[in-house]
Amino acid sequence: MNITLSHGSGGDATSKLIEEVFRSELHNEYLDRMEDSSVVPGGKRLALTTDSFVVQPLIYDGGDIGRLSVCGTVNDLLMSGAGPKYLTAGFVLEEGLDTELLKRIVHSMAETAQEAGVKIVAGDTKVIGHKGGKDDSPGLIINTAGVGFLDDALNVGAAFIREGDAIILSGNIGDHHAAIMKERLSIRNGNIKSDNAPLNEMVRGLLDGKVKVHAMRDVTRGGLGTVLNEFSRESGSDIYIIEEKLPVSDAVRDFSALLGLDIMYMGNEGKMVCAVAAEDKERAVDIIRSSRYGEGATIIGYAEKRETAGKGKLILKTGIGGERIVGPLYGEGLPRIC
Amino acid sequence: MNITLSHGSGGDATSKLIEEVFRSELHNEYLDRMEDSSVVPGGKRLALTTDSFVVQPLIYDGGDIGRLSVCGTVNDLLMSGAGPKYLTAGFVLEEGLDTELLKRIVHSMAETAQEAGVKIVAGDTKVIGHKGGKDDSPGLIINTAGVGFLDDALNVGAAFIREGDAIILSGNIGDHHAAIMKERLSIRNGNIKSDNAPLNEMVRGLLDGKVKVHAMRDVTRGGLGTVLNEFSRESGSDIYIIEEKLPVSDAVRDFSALLGLDIMYMGNEGKMVCAVAAEDKERAVDIIRSSRYGEGATIIGYAEKRETAGKGKLILKTGIGGERIVGPLYGEGLPRIC
Repeated sequence: MNITLSHGSGGDATSKLIEEVFRSELHNEYLDRMEDSSVVPGGKRLALTTDSFVVQPLIYDGGDIGRLSVCGTVNDLLMSGAGPKYLTAGFVLEEGLDTELLKRIVHSMAETAQEAGVKIVAGDTKVIGHKGGKDDSPGLIINTAGVGFLDDALNVGAAFIREGDAIILSGNIGDHHAAIMKERLSIRNGNIKSDNAPLNEMVRGLLDGKVKVHAMRDVTRGGLGTVLNEFSRESGSDIYIIEEKLPVSDAVRDFSALLGLDIMYMGNEGKMVCAVAAEDKERAVDIIRSSRYGEGATIIGYAEKRETAGKGKLILKTGIGGERIVGPLYGEGLPRIC
Repeated sequence: MNITLSHGSGGDATSKLIEEVFRSELHNEYLDRMEDSSVVPGGKRLALTTDSFVVQPLIYDGGDIGRLSVCGTVNDLLMSGAGPKYLTAGFVLEEGLDTELLKRIVHSMAETAQEAGVKIVAGDTKVIGHKGGKDDSPGLIINTAGVGFLDDALNVGAAFIREGDAIILSGNIGDHHAAIMKERLSIRNGNIKSDNAPLNEMVRGLLDGKVKVHAMRDVTRGGLGTVLNEFSRESGSDIYIIEEKLPVSDAVRDFSALLGLDIMYMGNEGKMVCAVAAEDKERAVDIIRSSRYGEGATIIGYAEKRETAGKGKLILKTGIGGERIVGPLYGEGLPRIC
């Protein structure tokens, strides 16, 4: 069955689509009520986030837009120190989309939500005409918004980064970016897979272990270079990164070299970078390494107070002893990577 | 300035776009922190909802996609009895979109958010290629998700509808639907305007006035016929509607007659229908009439227990004394009405 405009009417066809594709996968005691809003138990401090996912292709080696749309929002909640709890999901379907493909994607969302310990409690579906154009297959856009709860005592954010903090990366960078490019270029390489994953276990481990985590970010669109520029800008500290410490798989390194890609700007969807008080850095690496998706964690640099006034900079220390200021991603990057 | 793919890169151009277009309009103490999630004070019971808006054209007589994207989600929260508090906003921009147009739309969101008493606390921007096709101007899709808080004692939903409840409509139906069609057909008619509006005042009035409201729904995509079918299906009651009581403006009535549209399936974006205990019905109408956007409120029917087992039905009592069962919208309806 393919999606038709009548699936977006809000009437009979919409409700059949919701029953057959969405509720069958995503049902829970909140979503099943089918009211305009879902009512859920609350908490004292809330974290809220949203992300729209426009990745192409919809399914790629290592994941799909459904898994991505859950991981992206769950990870954004985790990065603020919150425990992810509820998601909303808004689907914009292009006319002609194959409902079997849609079901596979929604199933993947359901599995990933279970892995990440969140419930999808509200949803919406719209259908737009298929415009054709550069790529011919009808598309799908998913927006997820997330709600999580925070301990009162916890304050995590780039502004809390302190002099001497260690910068820790949870594993290899560039995997998701390379996986999407590989699909687009129809390159076969079984060693390149997206890393899209929910990072609950490593974050929970750090917080439960009372590690002094000052800031966390998942390394997504824009890559490590862009994220660490946010760290330096918001904290006013310079961030030094040791180039040879950056973990990259051989397959992704070769792939990037071949295509002339800069690893610093390649997006991931299952890696985080954090700034941790110097005295806790070894313990933090151990905790991340022993958690799911964190086996490649390593210290890649440190934060240093600026000697002159002004905004902090991101500085890459290269293998031959040089230093290079790295700005945020400038220009296009890879369209529709997430 | 027009949107380019680099505005979706997550890098430098994205952050300039966010500064210039979004933060300048939407800034508040939560959004300004620019973390991955926004942390806000919580409450005891939460209402959550989401809606994607794909309306075309982006600006129409009486409103625009920005105002619509706030009203739609605010109203969904209100319909569950919750006080709307926080919104997230996810933007998917088509390459080539005029940033002046985008600014106008974001400004409209900011104004509407203020009117509705909500803060937009988290956002996301993606850019996709412009595919051209049927309509040539680059498009914009906005997803909003909403969080509201509920009193512990309050239970509102179609399942709570009781025998004898009055069905009250807050004003004329069909306005938004007719306004969108008018734009698409390039028909000039100054008397047809979208009704998109946040319904806080009438809902707050009913709840503060301790009116026994059993169910509320905003009459959007799919129209009154679809919404009241949800009431009858979920409650197991038959819903009787008196055709001649249905409030419709002369302009919309003429427009619909001309184009052969069925008023029962025409969407609004600033009207609600509610089921209220019979003893409170006159008071409820008075409260809605004295509130903003509720001056046309009227009782349009009642709920009755079914004589035979099975799901409830929606029954329209026609002017000449007949009765007709009205199903939910079947088929396409008007694409991209919201």
